[in-house]
Amino acid sequence: MAFTGRELRSTLGEDGTLRLSLEQVTYDDPAADEVIVRIEAAPINPSDLGLLLGPAQVDTLRTDGDALVFEVPKGRLGSMKARLGQSMPVGNEGAGTVVAAGADAAALMGKRVSAVGGAMFADYRVLKARDVVELPEGTAAADGAAIFVNPLTALGFVETMRRDGHSAIVHTAAASNLGQMLQKICLADGVPLVNIVRSEEQAAILRDIGATHVVNSRDEDFRAKLTDAVAETGATVAFDAIGGGSLGSDILQAMEAAAVRKMTEYSRYGSEQFKQLYIYGALDMAPTTLNRLAFGFQWSVSGWLLTPFLRRAGMEALGAMRQRILAELTTTFASRYTRTIGLAEALQPDVLRAYERKATGEKFLIDPGRG
Amino acid sequence: MAFTGRELRSTLGEDGTLRLSLEQVTYDDPAADEVIVRIEAAPINPSDLGLLLGPAQVDTLRTDGDALVFEVPKGRLGSMKARLGQSMPVGNEGAGTVVAAGADAAALMGKRVSAVGGAMFADYRVLKARDVVELPEGTAAADGAAIFVNPLTALGFVETMRRDGHSAIVHTAAASNLGQMLQKICLADGVPLVNIVRSEEQAAILRDIGATHVVNSRDEDFRAKLTDAVAETGATVAFDAIGGGSLGSDILQAMEAAAVRKMTEYSRYGSEQFKQLYIYGALDMAPTTLNRLAFGFQWSVSGWLLTPFLRRAGMEALGAMRQRILAELTTTFASRYTRTIGLAEALQPDVLRAYERKATGEKFLIDPGRG
Repeated sequence: MAFTGRELRSTLGEDGTLRLSLEQVTYDDPAADEVIVRIEAAPINPSDLGLLLGPAQVDTLRTDGDALVFEVPKGRLGSMKARLGQSMPVGNEGAGTVVAAGADAAALMGKRVSAVGGAMFADYRVLKARDVVELPEGTAAADGAAIFVNPLTALGFVETMRRDGHSAIVHTAAASNLGQMLQKICLADGVPLVNIVRSEEQAAILRDIGATHVVNSRDEDFRAKLTDAVAETGATVAFDAIGGGSLGSDILQAMEAAAVRKMTEYSRYGSEQFKQLYIYGALDMAPTTLNRLAFGFQWSVSGWLLTPFLRRAGMEALGAMRQRILAELTTTFASRYTRTIGLAEALQPDVLRAYERKATGEKFLIDPGRG
Repeated sequence: MAFTGRELRSTLGEDGTLRLSLEQVTYDDPAADEVIVRIEAAPINPSDLGLLLGPAQVDTLRTDGDALVFEVPKGRLGSMKARLGQSMPVGNEGAGTVVAAGADAAALMGKRVSAVGGAMFADYRVLKARDVVELPEGTAAADGAAIFVNPLTALGFVETMRRDGHSAIVHTAAASNLGQMLQKICLADGVPLVNIVRSEEQAAILRDIGATHVVNSRDEDFRAKLTDAVAETGATVAFDAIGGGSLGSDILQAMEAAAVRKMTEYSRYGSEQFKQLYIYGALDMAPTTLNRLAFGFQWSVSGWLLTPFLRRAGMEALGAMRQRILAELTTTFASRYTRTIGLAEALQPDVLRAYERKATGEKFLIDPGRG
């Protein structure tokens, strides 16, 4: 029995436009080691938007039949050569039900599974059996849709902190689903966490789950409060989802100020405290500004990405993380969605503008079954 | 016999002024393990200016008797608390003749030595015998004055490259004394080096000593040429003396562009090539701007400082570097000075403005014997 369904595709054209469309795809019978999963829930993560919209200017959106078309600044095409002209499927992760299985994968037939296979914004996805994770009996698709990217990233932060020899963390955009997971992990593991948010509503979300250090970057005395929180926790590593502007620099400066408080002798090079900022997101696409004279020479600012981290961490560490995620699926690693949309809805201009804003607290889930 | 001499001092006052003056100091007889060195040559390194002038605004210079006084922006005092009110001696390194020696150091009497003891902008300096390096017979003071900071830094770059797993280097402000040493080392060791300069005169200095990759940042096609040079050499680590602005970011972008040229498949996260930028100076005190969307997530920007590097490298590596420096004192590690001044001259307004400009190719040497 052949399956036919829609796949959401993003195509960057040589003409400097980016096109989003739904393509009809027919899937062959699965090979012996494959399954076909009917997708029932796939989260829209910020990392998906990077591929979906890439360098497109959202305010140039126009419709072309059922498709959406955007202009791309000419200057951004150069770094995108490798994807020019390719119809690229989108959607990092999701959950669904196995509706066809090869001979060696028959045990998965009818089971609800989760996968981080890419191309999950679709009605169906063909996957190797070894690449799907069987969800515990009775797990809702929405609860199993996002068990990879955010949970592994949050666990990855704590693991990175340990491997780098730090003992407390600063996190920005901290009220996100990811941020809430991180706070829960830190509470369970006894790791002090300084949360940076930009509204009192966000601060309340975190305090409700037990956060003790929450700093609002819109407060007038933000820098002083941040320095106090950093001094109190001893945080010397930060994970920054924002990237643009000078917030990361402010964090390094707070770490330096906290270290200088403990110094008895002046050094022209600043403190000897090593300070690490990891940038893992791009909520602000503006350049990063480092006021490095305010934090000496003992610092590093680096990109942080899940896949290379997992490669370094190794299979054993990954196995342990997966086990913890499945055991704490509806507690530590619960995701909260503010809106569930169909696949076609994802290409409605107003809906796209809403999820593209990446507002903290707002989180979209795609359920292709809704149309 | 007691020695009395002048020491150049820098004092940051609570009132927000920075004062440079010569203080008369009398030195006791040396202890058994000490020597008194009559300073004959001490280079003015950029790192000395950090302590000498710190956050002072040079254009506010005024004289007060023989002293110079500068205003300091109020906002910069906070990070300087540890030096407020202290009369700080200046001068990282220098060479001179031992004019008095304790019982255990008698063998050094009359010898020409070099040291990196700090407080070398002075007529005399008391040092532990173990902290001075005896120079080869007949070495001129000027040739032995700068055998630590620049030579160890240049060797440290190559050593850091090796330890981090890179195989070629990009260097900025590359026509400096340090840059010329680095080029000679790289030629001797077979390490490809991309030199970034900002004039044709500077390019010529480097080509004269055998440089093959020299890129002028003021050329219109600078970025294209830099990318070509990076692609040709395979450089994935850069050492940047400038710090401010976006040159460091341009280098990372060139490394990414060179890596993308070799990619066959598009990745929204950029290439998998890890790119490292070390900032070791502050020729431009402006903030560092990172256009990180142009170079993916596989990068790191870090401060690089000699002392922590030497600590990590260990005694054995340091010993090998010292030996090489003494053996190649007038070849690889030769310093060229454009002007030799007396100690009092260092506090003449026009002279100070000249060495404070840190123009590439210009290098000042202090010889206290000149007055």
